[in-house]
Amino acid sequence: MSASSTPNFTFRKAAASGESPARAGQFRTGHGDVSTPAFMPVGTQGTVKGITPAQLQEIAPQVILGNTYHLGLRPGDGLVARLGGLHRLMGWEGPILTDSGGFQVFSMASLRKMTEDGVTFQSHIDGSPQFLSPERSLEIQRNLGSDICMALDECPPGSLERTKLELSMARTTRWLARSRAVALQPHQGLFAINQGGTHLDLRRRHLAEALELDAKTPFQGFAVGGLSVGEPKADMNAVLAEFVRELPADRPRYLMGVGTPEDLLFGIEHGVDLFDCVLPSREARHGRILTSRGRLNLKNARHREVDLPLDPECGCYTCRTFSRAYLHHLLRCGELLGFTLNTIHNLSYTVGLTRAARQALLENRFPAFAQFARAGWLTEEP
Amino acid sequence: MSASSTPNFTFRKAAASGESPARAGQFRTGHGDVSTPAFMPVGTQGTVKGITPAQLQEIAPQVILGNTYHLGLRPGDGLVARLGGLHRLMGWEGPILTDSGGFQVFSMASLRKMTEDGVTFQSHIDGSPQFLSPERSLEIQRNLGSDICMALDECPPGSLERTKLELSMARTTRWLARSRAVALQPHQGLFAINQGGTHLDLRRRHLAEALELDAKTPFQGFAVGGLSVGEPKADMNAVLAEFVRELPADRPRYLMGVGTPEDLLFGIEHGVDLFDCVLPSREARHGRILTSRGRLNLKNARHREVDLPLDPECGCYTCRTFSRAYLHHLLRCGELLGFTLNTIHNLSYTVGLTRAARQALLENRFPAFAQFARAGWLTEEP
Repeated sequence: MSASSTPNFTFRKAAASGESPARAGQFRTGHGDVSTPAFMPVGTQGTVKGITPAQLQEIAPQVILGNTYHLGLRPGDGLVARLGGLHRLMGWEGPILTDSGGFQVFSMASLRKMTEDGVTFQSHIDGSPQFLSPERSLEIQRNLGSDICMALDECPPGSLERTKLELSMARTTRWLARSRAVALQPHQGLFAINQGGTHLDLRRRHLAEALELDAKTPFQGFAVGGLSVGEPKADMNAVLAEFVRELPADRPRYLMGVGTPEDLLFGIEHGVDLFDCVLPSREARHGRILTSRGRLNLKNARHREVDLPLDPECGCYTCRTFSRAYLHHLLRCGELLGFTLNTIHNLSYTVGLTRAARQALLENRFPAFAQFARAGWLTEEP
Repeated sequence: MSASSTPNFTFRKAAASGESPARAGQFRTGHGDVSTPAFMPVGTQGTVKGITPAQLQEIAPQVILGNTYHLGLRPGDGLVARLGGLHRLMGWEGPILTDSGGFQVFSMASLRKMTEDGVTFQSHIDGSPQFLSPERSLEIQRNLGSDICMALDECPPGSLERTKLELSMARTTRWLARSRAVALQPHQGLFAINQGGTHLDLRRRHLAEALELDAKTPFQGFAVGGLSVGEPKADMNAVLAEFVRELPADRPRYLMGVGTPEDLLFGIEHGVDLFDCVLPSREARHGRILTSRGRLNLKNARHREVDLPLDPECGCYTCRTFSRAYLHHLLRCGELLGFTLNTIHNLSYTVGLTRAARQALLENRFPAFAQFARAGWLTEEP
């Protein structure tokens, strides 16, 4: 049974913001409803680093990510399937999105060789030869049992010249057609990824090709890939401002790999529903803290004696329980607990930002909300 | 106000085991009652490594430890006092015991110089010159605000020859007298530490000296130090079997630095009330798991596909939620969550063992309990 026959993934727009494309929405998955806009924390190897599922539940993300590349290599997707799937393995009962593995193959693996069929590469773990194709990517994702699967795309570097980019996109389109033909589990949906760098015309052409496939068998969502990969921020924003609104309005729109507070707000303003990024959790482990008053470098000696929470506006476990002085101490000592507590906060802040944006959209006060959030970030380092 | 004037720390024997010195007891501290026998997890730098206070609360230890040496150096006891004490700083509202700092000075610090006054040493963090004396140790502990303070002792190596050991013990006795004269916070109690290596006669003499001081101003408990420091296990056990029962029966008895399941059971059988050890948490981080069926090396490939909890007899969060296969995967990946989950289990197992021993004592079935526990450990690796 193909995923397209499931009644899940019907996207319902719950609210919009006047003339702007910003919107609150909802769609159903086999593991619960997803309220958007939503930031999805990344659980690369089957764990959001340093966080238990119980702690994650309190942070309450709508969806979390798993990595097809990593989990396919270790512990192996066949093993995950035999153990009852990724949800059961990692103790997370909410929705899971798995990426296609493409991004990792193109950024981590060595000795890559591209063919029309797929890409051969060496595992970054043991150097063993591996192969990823549109079919193999979805086989892994089917074995993992995620709710949202991503079709394999070629991930060109942001600097690729236009003619080569067009060749790459043509291949991604052919791969998308092959992906659409793969049978998934009944509860799984498939998202198509749009490429085209910062060339608006290429993105439009690529979308048109995807929509031709979509007319025969609909995708459950559309993602914008190939942004936030080193191009100037203004170029990324220009694409988002023009292009996101052109994606089908009746399906979720997912901006891949984007996750600073500023970028989330900009994306939401321009109609993005879903985001993922390792930034909030990675930054947390280095003591770079996101707050309603802007960024805070916890390593800085000025926090050594401060008996205040990381963010007085935040209600997360870390902010309810611990002072900056204590968290500064843990970080200076390299204590594991520091990584955990900072991650809880940064993820709570980021997930909370998208949740608050949704609430503002539902209550028809989104522009004021966005203005207020930005004003907070402009204050002195807290 | 001296700690001795507080009504806390009255030790009440709740049950004993026939003719054996094994006993269940209870004593009150400023942060709650302590039911014994009890294993006390170690929170060296103001955190039980990798565990939040909320997770620790579920493990439910009766007491946790803080390290005077570490916390005095970083973040500094004066700062901890200004931030409201160690309980508030680390978010732990239960009883805390702080060691004297002596063990770390004698095992970690370099360029030590001993005088009658105290010991000068170099900080292991920045090489700065530091000084620890009986008075300074208790000043740090007073600033930390722990419930149970330990008097500074000289910690001789297990191999020290008898005549040198006697000189060291004489100094420890003089230091104990100086410690007894230091004013603590009203809620704080002071424990004396008995030394003497594996020489029973020296331990008895040292105890007699402590009891002379005790007759004037009572200590709130007695600790056995200088064991489990490299001497043969049989020698340690011989001392425990003979000596522990000679410690005052109306005060808690604390065996320092001991924490394997076998040693806990042996200690309890011979009248020990309190234990501490880094072993369960340190072993956990290396994937060496304590279970009711003996030890389990989680790194072993035989656990790769095992869809069972670490210990089917265990009800901890880790065992309720995750398979060995998942925990094996986390360990292989070096994921932080693996350290946390394994620590939750090993501490739950160890704290649970002392809790179960207490229950068996209360229900007058301790010998059968001990026999059953030992039989479990003798089974094949689980």
